[in-house]
Amino acid sequence: MAVISFARGVPAPECLPVDALADCARAALERDGTTILNYGPVGGYAPLREWVAARHEVEPSQVLITNGSLQGLSLIAGLLVEPGMRVLVEGPTYDRALHIAARHHGKATVVLTDDDGLDPEALELPAAFLYTIPTFQNPSGRTLSLERRRALAELARDGKVLVLEDDPYSLVRYEGEPLPSVYELAGGEGVVYSFSFSKIVSPGLRVGYLIGPADLIARLEALAVQTYLTPALLPQATVHEFVSRDLLDANIERVVGLLRERRDAILEAFERELPDGTSWSRPEGGYFTWLDFPEGTDAGALLNAATEAGVTFVKGSDFYPPGTGGETSARFAFSFVSPADIGAGVARLASLLGELRSAAVAV
Amino acid sequence: MAVISFARGVPAPECLPVDALADCARAALERDGTTILNYGPVGGYAPLREWVAARHEVEPSQVLITNGSLQGLSLIAGLLVEPGMRVLVEGPTYDRALHIAARHHGKATVVLTDDDGLDPEALELPAAFLYTIPTFQNPSGRTLSLERRRALAELARDGKVLVLEDDPYSLVRYEGEPLPSVYELAGGEGVVYSFSFSKIVSPGLRVGYLIGPADLIARLEALAVQTYLTPALLPQATVHEFVSRDLLDANIERVVGLLRERRDAILEAFERELPDGTSWSRPEGGYFTWLDFPEGTDAGALLNAATEAGVTFVKGSDFYPPGTGGETSARFAFSFVSPADIGAGVARLASLLGELRSAAVAV
Repeated sequence: MAVISFARGVPAPECLPVDALADCARAALERDGTTILNYGPVGGYAPLREWVAARHEVEPSQVLITNGSLQGLSLIAGLLVEPGMRVLVEGPTYDRALHIAARHHGKATVVLTDDDGLDPEALELPAAFLYTIPTFQNPSGRTLSLERRRALAELARDGKVLVLEDDPYSLVRYEGEPLPSVYELAGGEGVVYSFSFSKIVSPGLRVGYLIGPADLIARLEALAVQTYLTPALLPQATVHEFVSRDLLDANIERVVGLLRERRDAILEAFERELPDGTSWSRPEGGYFTWLDFPEGTDAGALLNAATEAGVTFVKGSDFYPPGTGGETSARFAFSFVSPADIGAGVARLASLLGELRSAAVAV
Repeated sequence: MAVISFARGVPAPECLPVDALADCARAALERDGTTILNYGPVGGYAPLREWVAARHEVEPSQVLITNGSLQGLSLIAGLLVEPGMRVLVEGPTYDRALHIAARHHGKATVVLTDDDGLDPEALELPAAFLYTIPTFQNPSGRTLSLERRRALAELARDGKVLVLEDDPYSLVRYEGEPLPSVYELAGGEGVVYSFSFSKIVSPGLRVGYLIGPADLIARLEALAVQTYLTPALLPQATVHEFVSRDLLDANIERVVGLLRERRDAILEAFERELPDGTSWSRPEGGYFTWLDFPEGTDAGALLNAATEAGVTFVKGSDFYPPGTGGETSARFAFSFVSPADIGAGVARLASLLGELRSAAVAV
């Protein structure tokens, strides 16, 4: 029995534009090889930096291209978190943000969060920064409402809190209307915007970027130069070639088509298979849905049983600071699993859930 | 007047095998694109990891492939340096090692160093680790003698000190016989070996690796996954394709031929142009030579004058902890400057040095 893994937010192999990128990598090297292959500016491959700056209507000095967006988050934490400082996060939040806060001895502090995202009135301040994924959040799939975006942007603009807006999923939209980013609503003040090409082109290339005030970007560059000197330029030049050939929008459309089918498949399977008392998010985009099992379900025990039965997911408590939530919940990534396997995996899970509950009742 | 820069240890553009790498990048993606373009193991692209393991006769679990070797040093410092701990370094040492030690609040401590390299009997212990470049050292061009390598290996094997052996230059050898690495002499015990493809293939690819005990490598991997998740896989796969096609040795030979000519040119120019009382290292390989100006010369003042006259180098004090040495010295990188420019640059410098000394005498 093959394992069906809902555990990682990994694009399906079909999402990766392999042939186009192979061609782009070669073309970029043939055109600009002596630049790409030597040491370069720590801020990133200049033509890509300029492309990003134009796209967001900022100066290239406000852009830092990193070895993936996690590297950007890691640099920001390294620069801003002093031991004991709060790092505000959504509940649930991206687990690696929790680990990075912990590594820098920050105190990850959950902001009250509901189906409309985090509550901007509930921030415990002061804090080193607020880490948020406003659109199609990892792990919940939730999207911050427009009203709350405005409120958060105002707090950022007023200097109340520095917002790190992580936005890798917004272009993977299956339905509904795009919302403005917090960065846009704040006019760029008090917000650092983080983007990644991982979900719409390729994660293995490790190309992400930060946009922020030029002075902050300069300080991040100074830290980056002491950390890795120059980012890997070949992947950046390959991405630049890809966007220059105007392949990005068509690829996003293709990825969205592929993944919408999977999103639909998992929501249908949940509806069909899962018992009363289970609820889940219905994301309009992104890679994830969040499940709340019936009250009293131990998501960790269910995961152990499921893993033995060949189905994996990530238990909800991994997305909270230790002991603060998620015990009866789980994150399901539908991006990597074929629609047929999604149905089979959810059926296996439903059957286990039934067994666990019967056992609990029997005891 | 074009600036002649002896400042950075950057390979000449002619050293970069652009066309071959363009071909390798495309071939690697065409063959293994869905692996290379997705998230992968934090330890690196598996086929390259296996190639490295075989080359050094270790297990793949003892290899961590990083986004350049500085990233490896940065991870090691992040793991091992607690505030106030000593980090032992050569005097002079690679400046970025000093910055990294400082960033982690370590105390960079210079080990007595002479023309045979650092003195293993002069280590101030305990220390988080000893950072050394035993072969064609940056910045001095010096090589640690065999006898001292043996003594250092014994200290490492006995658990007296963890040695981080940084070895990016040893394959760029113009003459003389290769020496065994400290890692080899210690049988791998107590030594982490760091290598880079920057000086023999391409720095912009950012591919380096660490070899060490499997348990330490596992801890570094855990830190790396929280820092950048997955290293950039395309450059690693491109390097793997390059070595698999057996292009490495021929490229090293080509690079060595190109740079030997520059090493010869700079030593001849020094001999021809520089005044009595100036001395310099005569490296058998690598990118650098180290100049000691006549007593009383202020290398910083000379650098300012030289920069105005269109010649740059790095002043010696940048390679020591603040205030501990190098005031009358300088590092000259000859790798990026054509032989003709080397002669012209050294002539300009000699003329400035003469002026500075006349002025000093006149005062």
